[in-house]
Amino acid sequence: MEVDFSNIKVIGFDADDTLWVNETYFRDTEEKFADLLDCYETKNKIDQELFKMEMANLETYGYGIKGFMLSMIESALDLSNNKVSQQTIVEILDLGKKMIAHPVELLDGVEEVLSGLVGKYRLIVLTKGDLLDQERKLEKSGLSKYFHHVEVLSEKKENNYSNLLEHLNIDVNEFLMIGNSLKSDVLPIINIGAKAVHVPFHTTWAHEMVAEDEIVNNHLKLNNIKDILKYLEN
Amino acid sequence: MEVDFSNIKVIGFDADDTLWVNETYFRDTEEKFADLLDCYETKNKIDQELFKMEMANLETYGYGIKGFMLSMIESALDLSNNKVSQQTIVEILDLGKKMIAHPVELLDGVEEVLSGLVGKYRLIVLTKGDLLDQERKLEKSGLSKYFHHVEVLSEKKENNYSNLLEHLNIDVNEFLMIGNSLKSDVLPIINIGAKAVHVPFHTTWAHEMVAEDEIVNNHLKLNNIKDILKYLEN
Repeated sequence: MEVDFSNIKVIGFDADDTLWVNETYFRDTEEKFADLLDCYETKNKIDQELFKMEMANLETYGYGIKGFMLSMIESALDLSNNKVSQQTIVEILDLGKKMIAHPVELLDGVEEVLSGLVGKYRLIVLTKGDLLDQERKLEKSGLSKYFHHVEVLSEKKENNYSNLLEHLNIDVNEFLMIGNSLKSDVLPIINIGAKAVHVPFHTTWAHEMVAEDEIVNNHLKLNNIKDILKYLEN
Repeated sequence: MEVDFSNIKVIGFDADDTLWVNETYFRDTEEKFADLLDCYETKNKIDQELFKMEMANLETYGYGIKGFMLSMIESALDLSNNKVSQQTIVEILDLGKKMIAHPVELLDGVEEVLSGLVGKYRLIVLTKGDLLDQERKLEKSGLSKYFHHVEVLSEKKENNYSNLLEHLNIDVNEFLMIGNSLKSDVLPIINIGAKAVHVPFHTTWAHEMVAEDEIVNNHLKLNNIKDILKYLEN
């Protein structure tokens, strides 16, 4: 299928699992969390209960590591009927702090793509994580020099994108979004009439999953972000 | 003294303790936190240790209620030598969730100022809190209709403001910032050559205090935000 990119002037990049690895660290931390609580429940039950707690707290905490830490603590208290040891709470805080301090691992092809596009397009980072986390990761990644700035959205729904394009004075026809999440980076973008490129990451958080048949058939799907250069660099 | 506002086209409003009450709820929660731990330490020591913990964690967590909650939990474990009860941790989580869910109390004169300025200036909210918290408070406050959008900065230092003005294509001569913090809303703004109005709030977090003699003598200080209309509405 063909997607026409000839009008594009501004490109928004999702950050986590598009520019750098992220979801993998959440999965690793969930494993460690389950190990800490394995005297109370099965790994499977712990996983399920933590996910439920995250969903129950999502409206209150939003996205990002701090809310995840608070949900782990609450879930540990809940799963253990308030018997979890104080030392375990200390270790949960430590797991979260380690996630925040984790080095940034760029995904394959990212640097090549950004250096190929910089100067030709206005490049922005568009994320729903925590602003401080994302700015820190961008700095650690060495990619700051390619980006005009970082925008954090509390959600990535159609109206969040529409408001953003409006306040940055970007015409919807001139905007392209690149990201790993169909739900957050592709579907709402297509629905407002902008363009989207989907670059799947091997791990997707259950909350970000959509059924394949929800996919609208007018975006480009790439296995490696590098392939975008064939469409944009000319 | 005179400050010339004739070029101003865009006005940034700090949110917490400028548009609505905020610091008061942190002080109230700190009181309740100290009550929960009064079997381990004096109130004064608990206050001091919590503040130290917040400062130690500031680079990791940034600003906002979620980081404050995590620092309360860590501080409770620390102060009690890991003896704090699981039930107390549950209550600390609850204190934080109540802060997040707290109704918004507008400060005197805010609605009058915004309705007087809307349409004549581009009004934006400029905060370093948590984006989700701030969007939620703006919605609850009923003030959304006055604002072009909300910008969250990870810090309010000179370069954060400069980058923001650049990405919003705002000329520094056309920008006015209104806020309650000399350190965050006034000094960096004056240093980059924009204009600032200081409207003090009765409670200031220790981290936001500056010595009076640090104040550069070219901003306007108002006791009530309403007084800004005398300078701008004509």
